[in-house]
Amino acid sequence: MKKLKEYIRSIPDFPEQGIIFRDITSMLQDADGLALAVNKLRDEVKDLDYDIIVGPESRGFIFGVPLAYAEHKPFIPIRKKGKLPCETISVEYDLEYGKGILEIHKDAVSPGQRVVIVDDLIATGGTTQAMIKLIEQLGGVVVKLCFMIELKDLKGRDKLKGYSVSSLVSYEDD
Amino acid sequence: MKKLKEYIRSIPDFPEQGIIFRDITSMLQDADGLALAVNKLRDEVKDLDYDIIVGPESRGFIFGVPLAYAEHKPFIPIRKKGKLPCETISVEYDLEYGKGILEIHKDAVSPGQRVVIVDDLIATGGTTQAMIKLIEQLGGVVVKLCFMIELKDLKGRDKLKGYSVSSLVSYEDD
Repeated sequence: MKKLKEYIRSIPDFPEQGIIFRDITSMLQDADGLALAVNKLRDEVKDLDYDIIVGPESRGFIFGVPLAYAEHKPFIPIRKKGKLPCETISVEYDLEYGKGILEIHKDAVSPGQRVVIVDDLIATGGTTQAMIKLIEQLGGVVVKLCFMIELKDLKGRDKLKGYSVSSLVSYEDD
Repeated sequence: MKKLKEYIRSIPDFPEQGIIFRDITSMLQDADGLALAVNKLRDEVKDLDYDIIVGPESRGFIFGVPLAYAEHKPFIPIRKKGKLPCETISVEYDLEYGKGILEIHKDAVSPGQRVVIVDDLIATGGTTQAMIKLIEQLGGVVVKLCFMIELKDLKGRDKLKGYSVSSLVSYEDD
């Protein structure tokens, strides 16, 4: 059986010169790759006590929603500014050039709820920190962070000390 | 049992005065709502002969990926300009103000492949027409279009004559 990493394509010089982009679309476009990816995420959460799955727009939706469906859990989206229609709280985070803003619905997380965050990638960890801030501001407890891909050289884990972090595929020395 | 429509929230005056926004996040944040939504989509495709599921960024991912996972089919994303790392084809479509560009990977659809398009919403049908154009340009055959929500007054179906279109929840006379 193919390993998860074999379904991921590496694209040199995207989005810019010198960057190797790890492309998950090659995994999604193979039914076995998609099944393996979601089933491995299920393994990560199956023994966990948690209430909701949170994932960010838009690639966090790709893994977070099928996981929530398969595990019969609620899915809470975190979106870019202006996309969520009800009352939100927001957080600013650093992008490579400038700042971004992420939002979550105020009624989407209740105090004490146990939260699993799912995303496709952990790089520097900045987006993840911002998501944690939103969830904790609403009183949620982040019990686990699951990433499809970890870019180890960017040391995102260093920003997430005290949290349980797992990644299914990791890359070093890009 | 609650009906699908009961999980959808209606938000007046979003994103602007006079518009009623149909919010699916209330459905996603109830595990039963999410399960019902995906299972109803599964009913729509279960007797169909098709090869791949295509969905657009970012809310098309919300329903397309769990459907693909549950039915063990490949999922092909259509994304906004500049997001897909490999060779793409693109199409311009009308937004309320100005133009948007959608892209698909050139190798994502093979000639003759039978395609189901999944999206959260059909309004005027402009985005859907653009997606069909991309798929047909690659030689794919669109065998069905499945929408979570249909805004009937905007007559999107009129633009999709000759295609099989279904929606799970519809609204009229907004």
